[in-house]
Amino acid sequence: MDRQKALELVKEQLTDHRYIHTCGVMETAILLARRFGADEKKAEIAAIFHDYAKFRDKEEMKRMIESEALPKDLLEYNGELWHAPVGAILVEREVGIDDAEILNAIRYHTSGCEDMSTLDKVIYLADYIEPNRSFPGVEEVREMARESLDKAIIKALQNTVGFLMKKGQPIYPDTFKFYNQLVLEQRR
Amino acid sequence: MDRQKALELVKEQLTDHRYIHTCGVMETAILLARRFGADEKKAEIAAIFHDYAKFRDKEEMKRMIESEALPKDLLEYNGELWHAPVGAILVEREVGIDDAEILNAIRYHTSGCEDMSTLDKVIYLADYIEPNRSFPGVEEVREMARESLDKAIIKALQNTVGFLMKKGQPIYPDTFKFYNQLVLEQRR
Repeated sequence: MDRQKALELVKEQLTDHRYIHTCGVMETAILLARRFGADEKKAEIAAIFHDYAKFRDKEEMKRMIESEALPKDLLEYNGELWHAPVGAILVEREVGIDDAEILNAIRYHTSGCEDMSTLDKVIYLADYIEPNRSFPGVEEVREMARESLDKAIIKALQNTVGFLMKKGQPIYPDTFKFYNQLVLEQRR
Repeated sequence: MDRQKALELVKEQLTDHRYIHTCGVMETAILLARRFGADEKKAEIAAIFHDYAKFRDKEEMKRMIESEALPKDLLEYNGELWHAPVGAILVEREVGIDDAEILNAIRYHTSGCEDMSTLDKVIYLADYIEPNRSFPGVEEVREMARESLDKAIIKALQNTVGFLMKKGQPIYPDTFKFYNQLVLEQRR
């Protein structure tokens, strides 16, 4: 699918603010894919559609988690996680994208998980550091992303999990597993 | 076993500083047991022996984890975790304590785990707040411990996990599970 067509399709699903964010993720994902050796075209398409389900009705997403082959424990955790795995299903079904690598990158872009591919990691990190993002710690992660995909993601996870824990939020188990695996790999 | 005999046995295993800590944990554990409805005598004995293996040789502990029925993934994580499950085995074998509730409280006092008993939680929290402890956040946890065992532990875990993550340490999976379970239960 060409970029213009993909952007048109996703624009209908998003607020203006989220569309601008999506364009930032796209540009960043292409750069990171080039830097760390992922498929640039797949990075572009995964980035464009990563938030496809962001504004779907919460009840609709809940019903999908209950009825589709999705982890039921998502329902116990923050609803902000839902649009990623639900999005992977809807992008396949409504947009017709059936590339498993692209769909996985969409599926795991919020929670992370163990054994992420380079493409998955590129989308995860691009979502965190794209130029429109502005929150404490993002600049440090951008700096680290010049050198190391994994080290930048570890720092992003330290920030995100630390923030959620301070608020007393539960942490989705895949996110902990993602963090632990990256940290343990750095030690080997 | 009476208190004096237990204290004599553990004193041989500990530095003076750690023995003083142990006496603090004992006093605090008895108070918390009374407050939250655990067995005070078991709390006393579990507290006295909670750090029994603290100064065992790391290589000896490593060999025990490899050869005994202990989780092998402990070896991938911080060695500071090892003395708790190793201690539970040694307290049974060398001291002759065979009460499963006391041994569990020793086993889980550093990592925590899912489905902790009230006694387990009492020892976990007493270890964190005993009067000789002095680090950022401990006073807030002491305050919370007047009202709620679980809320105080959540705060302690927020501090501990936050501290370890800032240092880029991996977090033992049982610790995450412990945190998530307590937080999710608070929401119900």
